[in-house]
Amino acid sequence: VAEIAALVFDVFGTLFDWRTSIAREVRSLAPGVAGDAFADAWRRLYQPSLERVRSGERPFAKLDVLHRESLDRLLPEFGLGNLDPPERDRLNQAWHRLDPWPDVVEGLARLHSRFVLAPLSNGNVSLLIDLARHAGLQFDTVLSTELFQAYKPQPETYLGACRLLDRDPDSVLMVAAHADDLRAAATNGLQTAFVARPLEWGASASFEHPVDAPFTFSVGDLGELADRLGC
Amino acid sequence: VAEIAALVFDVFGTLFDWRTSIAREVRSLAPGVAGDAFADAWRRLYQPSLERVRSGERPFAKLDVLHRESLDRLLPEFGLGNLDPPERDRLNQAWHRLDPWPDVVEGLARLHSRFVLAPLSNGNVSLLIDLARHAGLQFDTVLSTELFQAYKPQPETYLGACRLLDRDPDSVLMVAAHADDLRAAATNGLQTAFVARPLEWGASASFEHPVDAPFTFSVGDLGELADRLGC
Repeated sequence: VAEIAALVFDVFGTLFDWRTSIAREVRSLAPGVAGDAFADAWRRLYQPSLERVRSGERPFAKLDVLHRESLDRLLPEFGLGNLDPPERDRLNQAWHRLDPWPDVVEGLARLHSRFVLAPLSNGNVSLLIDLARHAGLQFDTVLSTELFQAYKPQPETYLGACRLLDRDPDSVLMVAAHADDLRAAATNGLQTAFVARPLEWGASASFEHPVDAPFTFSVGDLGELADRLGC
Repeated sequence: VAEIAALVFDVFGTLFDWRTSIAREVRSLAPGVAGDAFADAWRRLYQPSLERVRSGERPFAKLDVLHRESLDRLLPEFGLGNLDPPERDRLNQAWHRLDPWPDVVEGLARLHSRFVLAPLSNGNVSLLIDLARHAGLQFDTVLSTELFQAYKPQPETYLGACRLLDRDPDSVLMVAAHADDLRAAATNGLQTAFVARPLEWGASASFEHPVDAPFTFSVGDLGELADRLGC
């Protein structure tokens, strides 16, 4: 196994608890709305919206734009079709101020003492900057897939990140709570760390550890990852 | 004047004292060499090497590559033609571990409390990451011109930075010690801050404040800039 020089992180679900944050924001805007269901429904439109870019059906658009289009589709279904454009923009910006999982701030600080750290996320650059500032996270740079005009799991996102870091893929560790992201990273030569986030879709959703994929590391949180990496 | 949201910084000469650092590294490798003259000569090959990319004479190459080619040209002139490739690589990496000017660490920390900060430099991403880690600087992301496969003062570097930050150019402040960089930034709609670095080329080099360019701010160091911006 090659020596690890840099860690790149999936963001939504891996570092940030999007569901609780989005539910809270929509409830504060419209107290009667089922916030959790709204958050889940918004997030379920995420992969289909990316897929239209990945497939070439439409040109690249920033995730902020895709989130906003999904929101416009969703609002009438939740009886919120009367929100005006500035209110929609503000709600869309909720993705810029998500709260991190409880282990993230300290875990990243420990990892940063020894490794180069960057998000490798489908979030656009400005979104990822805002999230890191909101949570007080220190990254060395932002490796948004916007830089490559592509979306994970397209190969150019993983390989482009390694190229910018000037590192061979096997010296870069992809950290994520999603097996498909890690499988694509591994296919492109990166090392992988699975972080279990059983609450990503709420306490009542079923959660299963992926068993079919051999990851370099499999941990319960970033503190455990820091332990395993000797930080 | 629009409200400023983000500050982008030139790096070599503006934040980092390349001359003292490079001179020290070459002297430690070869005590008899005139370190200051070597540093100046290496830096004088910088713009011509960028110009071959900007003009289209050659495809884009990272600054690390250009620095290394310039070094190979230079070494025989200083009686160092016998350095082997690993020694040359190590010396080339000296650009990744420059020391900042004395006001930079505290100045950036103050500015970071209120503004998004990023280097906007011809240094490649990995070089800029290493410099920030070496000096203990906290940026929100790295806006290397490598992201745009171009070199300042090409317009796509300034405009690309604003696009990734999702900000209109007039809400982005370019900070540099070089009038030509600031003039190009202003031409592309950015606000500008000139920082005087009279020692960039050493105490015996002549230094003149640019008088023909109306910058948004003109300051003596980053502490003064933080004062002016109310940080």
